[in-house]
Formats: sequence, C-alpha cells, structure tokens
Amino acid sequence: MDIVKPSILPGFMELNPKEQLAFNEIREIIKSTYEDFGFLPIDTPVIEKSEVLLAKGGGDTEKQVYRFDKGDTDLTLRFDLTVPLARYSTMRFSDLEFPFKRYQIAKVYRGERNQKGRFREFYQADVDIIGNGSLAIENDAEMPAIIYQIFKKLNFGPFTIKINNRKVLLGFYKSLGVEDPAMILRIIDKMDKVSEEKTVEALKEEGLDQKAIDSIFDFINIEGSPKDVIRNLKKLPVESDEFNLGLEELEKVISILPSYNIPEDYYKIDLKLQRGLDYYTGTIFETIMNDYPSLGSVCGGGRYDNLAGYYTDRKMPGVGVSIGLTRLFYQLNEAGLIDVKTSHESSVLVVPMEGFSADATKVATSLRNAKITTQVYYEDGKMGKKFSYADKIGIRYVIVIGEDEVARKAYSIKDMKTGESFYMKTAEIVNKIYTDRSDDDE
Amino acid sequence: MDIVKPSILPGFMELNPKEQLAFNEIREIIKSTYEDFGFLPIDTPVIEKSEVLLAKGGGDTEKQVYRFDKGDTDLTLRFDLTVPLARYSTMRFSDLEFPFKRYQIAKVYRGERNQKGRFREFYQADVDIIGNGSLAIENDAEMPAIIYQIFKKLNFGPFTIKINNRKVLLGFYKSLGVEDPAMILRIIDKMDKVSEEKTVEALKEEGLDQKAIDSIFDFINIEGSPKDVIRNLKKLPVESDEFNLGLEELEKVISILPSYNIPEDYYKIDLKLQRGLDYYTGTIFETIMNDYPSLGSVCGGGRYDNLAGYYTDRKMPGVGVSIGLTRLFYQLNEAGLIDVKTSHESSVLVVPMEGFSADATKVATSLRNAKITTQVYYEDGKMGKKFSYADKIGIRYVIVIGEDEVARKAYSIKDMKTGESFYMKTAEIVNKIYTDRSDDDE
Repeated sequence: MDIVKPSILPGFMELNPKEQLAFNEIREIIKSTYEDFGFLPIDTPVIEKSEVLLAKGGGDTEKQVYRFDKGDTDLTLRFDLTVPLARYSTMRFSDLEFPFKRYQIAKVYRGERNQKGRFREFYQADVDIIGNGSLAIENDAEMPAIIYQIFKKLNFGPFTIKINNRKVLLGFYKSLGVEDPAMILRIIDKMDKVSEEKTVEALKEEGLDQKAIDSIFDFINIEGSPKDVIRNLKKLPVESDEFNLGLEELEKVISILPSYNIPEDYYKIDLKLQRGLDYYTGTIFETIMNDYPSLGSVCGGGRYDNLAGYYTDRKMPGVGVSIGLTRLFYQLNEAGLIDVKTSHESSVLVVPMEGFSADATKVATSLRNAKITTQVYYEDGKMGKKFSYADKIGIRYVIVIGEDEVARKAYSIKDMKTGESFYMKTAEIVNKIYTDRSDDDE
Repeated sequence: MDIVKPSILPGFMELNPKEQLAFNEIREIIKSTYEDFGFLPIDTPVIEKSEVLLAKGGGDTEKQVYRFDKGDTDLTLRFDLTVPLARYSTMRFSDLEFPFKRYQIAKVYRGERNQKGRFREFYQADVDIIGNGSLAIENDAEMPAIIYQIFKKLNFGPFTIKINNRKVLLGFYKSLGVEDPAMILRIIDKMDKVSEEKTVEALKEEGLDQKAIDSIFDFINIEGSPKDVIRNLKKLPVESDEFNLGLEELEKVISILPSYNIPEDYYKIDLKLQRGLDYYTGTIFETIMNDYPSLGSVCGGGRYDNLAGYYTDRKMPGVGVSIGLTRLFYQLNEAGLIDVKTSHESSVLVVPMEGFSADATKVATSLRNAKITTQVYYEDGKMGKKFSYADKIGIRYVIVIGEDEVARKAYSIKDMKTGESFYMKTAEIVNKIYTDRSDDDE
C-alpha cells in the first residue's frame, strides 16, 4: 500500500489531548456563563449559500472566504457568526421571542494569508441580544457583565474592559467639521499600531488643521474614573445631538454596571477605543489582560442599529460580544498561562493481573456508578508500563486487581499524586476519592 | 438596499432554540458518558488536504465529498471522523499514550443526494480505542457498555445492542467453499431491506447451491440467549481457524458484559448482523430501539485490525462505536420522542417597572451568584407581553420589581408552572427555587 505522509493544512489549530482538555475547559466556562444569563444556543450550518452569506458583498471578506461550487450551487463557508445570526433571526423571525438572546460557539473560516498566530479555521464564541424594532440600552451593560464573569472564572489575571460609544466619537469628530468622520475612527483605531506622529500626519492628510488635531488628542486623552470622564465630556463645548445622545447612553451603561457587581478596577471608559468594524452605532467594548498588553484585545463587541438589513426591512438592533477563542487559547498558551493538568485529576486506572479482567471491570463499573471517571488497562505488559500510562495521561489513582484482592474484596490503590498506597474495599476507595476531591477544592 | 431572501441549503439541519436545547442535552449525555469511561477529546479540522483524507481513494466516498481548490491547494471537508482519527494517531503518535482512548463529537460532510432524513452536514459522536501493535479483546466489550449507559440515560425506551463477529461470519462462509465471502456479508446485510427470496436469488447468483444457502439460513437464524447461541455455534461442523478464533472472541466479549452491569435483555448475539463497511475484522455492533424498529440501527461500530494503513506501516488495531447524532435526533423528533421542554425550567425572568432597571439587575446578579439562570427584561411594554415572553421561552419564575418591592426588599414572584404568586426576599426566592428543583428531581 502506498503511504501518504499524515499532515494538516497550515493555519489550522489542532491540539494534543491534554491541550484539548484545557481548551474545552475554557470553552465550557464561556458557554456556561452565557447560559447563566439566559442565552439560548443555536447551531447554524458551516456551509451556506454564497448569495446569502455574501449579501453584503465587497471588501476583504469576499477575498478571504472559502467559496466553491457543488453541482450548480455556489457555496461559502461561514466567515463569522454574525451574518448567520442575521440570516437565522430573519428566516425564523416568527419562531423566536424578542429580545432574542442567543449564543453560538463554533468554528468559522477565513482563507487569510498564513502567519504565526493567525488561523484559517477558528472558534468564535458569540453572544448577542437582538431586539424587534428597538432594544433597551440596559442590554448593552450586560455585555461587560458577561465578560467580567468569564474572565474572572478563567483566572488568567487582572483584565480591563474598555468601554466607549460610537455616537460620542462620531458626534465629536463631526463637530470639528470633518467630512468623513468614519475615516478619523479608523485612523485613531490604528494609533497603537503606528506612531503618534504618523497618526497626526494621517489626520492632516484628511484636511484637519492643527487646532482640530489638538482637540482630538485632548479628547481621546481624557482619562480618569468613569464618572470623571463623563463629567469632563459634559464640559466639552460640543454642539451635537449625536454626541449628547451617545453621552447619555454611555452614562446609562456605566451607571448600571455596579448593579452587576463588577468592581470598578475591571472597567473604564477609553475614548481611544474606536473599533474597526463599520456596523457599530453606539456602545463599543474591548478587553485587555493587564499583565499581557501585547496580546491586544481578547474580546470585542458593541451595539449595532441594524442587524439584518440585507435580509429584511424590519429594524433589528442588537448588542453583542465575540471572543476569538482559538486565538485567545493560542496566545495564552504562548504566554505560558495554560495549565494542561486540568484533566482526569480524580480519575482511576484499574489494572487487572492476568485472568482478572472481569473482576477489574466490576470494580470499574462500581466506581463509574459512583460518578468517578474510570478506565481499565486490559493490555498485557509490565506493571511499570501501566503505572507510566496513568502518570502520563494524568490519572491520579491506580488500582491493581489480582487473586489476593478478589479473595479479600479489598484492592491495593496507589495515589499517584501523594505516592501513598492503601489497601481498601470499593466503598472506602469511593470515600477516599471524594474526600481528596473536596480537599482539592478548598 | 437589495434584500436577499434568507434561506439555508437543503440537507442541512438547523433547529429552533428549544429543539437545539434538546439536541444539546442528548449530545451532552453522550459526551459525559464517553468521559466517564476515560476517553479524551480531540478536535480535528473540518478542512483537510485531499491527498490525506482521500488516501484510500475510490468508491462512493470520493463521489460524495465536498472537494475544492483554494489557491493551489486541493481541499476536502471531512466526511467521517475515522479517517481524521487515523491521520491524528499516526501524525501525533509520539505524543500519545496507547491504548489511545479518544472521543470526537463533530460535524461531517457528504454531498449526498437530497432526500428526507438524509443530511449533508451531520454530527457523528465517535468513540474509539486504538492500540499500538495489539489491543486486548476486553476493550471490545467496553463499546456495548458505553452504548448501554448512553441509551439508558437518554431514556427513549428499551433498546437492544446486537453483537456479532466478522471472523465467525467469514470463517463460516468460507467453510462453504464461497469464493467471495465479503459479497455474502453484503447480501445478508441488505436482507432486511429486500425480501428473503431476493436474498436467496442473490446468493444463487454468487454460485451457491441450495444446500449452502440452507446452511447460511440455518446459521444466521440461530437464536436464543448469548450462551445458547455460543453453545449452538460450537456444535456446528465448521472446520475453520478463523471461525474458531471469532467464536472465542465473541465468547470473551459476551462473558465480560455482566461485569459492566448490562442487563441481559439489553443485548443479544445476532448472526444476521453483518455491517456494510469492509474494514471491520472482528466484533461488530448495532443498536435498535425495540419500540421503533423502523428507525433501524441508531449506532454501530466494531473492531478493525488496521486503522491507519494509508499513513503508516505500524499496525494500529482499534475498536469503536459511532452515533449518527443528527439522524438520531431527526428520527426521534419525527417519532415524537423529543421533549423540547428541557430548558430553563428553573430559570428566572426579572421584570423591572419603569426606572427600576438597576434594582432589577441587582436582584438578577444575586440570583446568578446563587447559580440560578436569570435574565432581566429591560424593554418597555405591557406586563402581559413580558409574562408571555417568559411563558414562551419556558422560564418558570417571573419576579416584578418596582418602588414598593425595592422599599420592602421583598419581591413578587410568580411560579409559572403552578400559577402561584409569592412575596419574598431574595434569600427566600433562592431557597424556593432550590426546593422546587430537588422536588422535580424526585
């Protein structure tokens, strides 16, 4: 038989089982937090009609997608979870209750240029609240509340949720007489990737004079507690309904955050935050890990006025947050923050002596009935190899079963963590494992 | 803006949120059972190199796959989870401990002809044990043990795990002087879809005389308790090492099942069971739901001698089972067995009166801290609409918060299940919900 060298495509993350356990643990924390807040799961197809997924058309999206024909159908792999949400919400409008709170944690595909830390297949963990016609501003405050809960539980150190509002930004830029305020957003958005000088240059190229540029820098450099920032923003001599409305929204969002029990050192108003995507229309968020600023934003989101304009005339405003789970995991792993010893910590390997497989299986079945993860090592081989298997997989307890043990109905159990060995009946083993577990939880 | 009618491709299952919750509950039972037995998760890419995924080549597989070029790379979407497992196990051989016990629950893609109940994107829930060089026969018995636990927990009524052994079948067919015993397998495999007459005809076309055909029917109709069947098989005048080895394996598998606490009415030896796929070499399984025989087999699997012959010279025998989760869910739903009222049964909706959003949020935060799924309905609107939202989503408790409630720190809570209303402090609410929960569990 011809042998093909097994390999995967570049830009695709595939983990070994221990890393996968750590990855799944993070995914599970995100999922369960979304559920705690009452969000419902949806699961859309990976493949959709190109005319539907690419209804918006143009731009980088179209260049990056995986698109192909099957028979005479033009197909595209989803490149985010927002377009499928828009399609789902309009297609199933009459089946849904609004505000529609959904989460989806799934893989998306982008045929990006191959580079370290960029992935062509990656998980997004999205949560959104979609209104029918309108959506109360309080929903915006739920996003930082969810993000706070998730990153607190993930326990990767202190983090800061940056909050801003697009109307405040656009209203302010427009008040300077700028023609294309969205361009100013994009220039300021890139400031931390280029120098301040280059930013000034770019602003000048947009036709801004030094006075306007100074105003912008004074504005984006307003800092302090959320209350201070809002107080200072109110003092600005800006004549703009858009600015005032944005400020009102921002104040409302900030005022409700303490009711979510988010400590004040976990969020701030950051006027430098602009967000690149053009569909945000109000509140915007990003999150950074304080001790790892080079990771950049680990999740982002915001408020959009019109989710599904390509599919319906119905106005559906929404607010949401997306965690780029694959990239986050990659970065945390690179930074040495992923603890792969997450699995199997209270699990058992039962090792039968020759001829005692059935007895070993009985003991394993009893342990599983007591909700203890248990496997039996049925293979022949040296005892050392079997203990080494347990050690490498990360199994804590090894029970050996032979003639003597079966006769006495008591088994030798080795705790691989402490190195201690005991001689116990099944009920005593269950008891020990439960006691160890609750000790570990303390 | 031009509006595109939102739709999805035929052959792709997409559920509404309540169905999705029911689907996820089934998936979670499968996943947690796999984990109870010590299996580790892996997550392989959906897109792989065509030369790797299609190394085997030919046959129906190649016709059905989604295959396309991106740049100058020839790509294919995975069409099962077995080929990726083979690729993973050989590519990561030195990172893995053997026996390698992995599970993967993920979507696969087949561009099949569109028909009711057949899907082009569907979940498979696979569990396999892969040996390095050899794999003890006891591992085979773990598969029915896992299937028993899963279908017992799923609680869709009585089921039967059918067990057979390919060596018994092939050894027996060869002993009749048949030239192509694999062809006999395939003919008998299709017998329940065609008539007995057509089966006899097909066997005659293979050159079998009436005596041989009678022998085959006598053989596949051997029935009774597993012990009876084995006793009767031993009495057959078959001179075949293959047959004898298979019989020994079958006896071993059967003999260990009681140690897994599987009641005898949940499994049987079924000599009619042949399995279509050609890579099985020993034990084979299928499962049927006793009250819904028309569903056919809801999961299948078996022992294979050589997982990864296309990628390595190393011999890697394995045994596994696959549950076709999407098809199973579809069939159970069609049969009216899916109870979509699975969600949110102890969850809470907090409804603020105008101006009490922050207070409502505080109560919601306290409930979430007590591990109670809670959402706040921030929108304006009539009270009736808000209760109707709770009702339709399946939320059990609605708490209304206004001036009076905040002043007294006690809230009106309505139990939508019983229709009763109470007036309670937060701690009392938590207590009530916990009490209701444990009552419901009884």
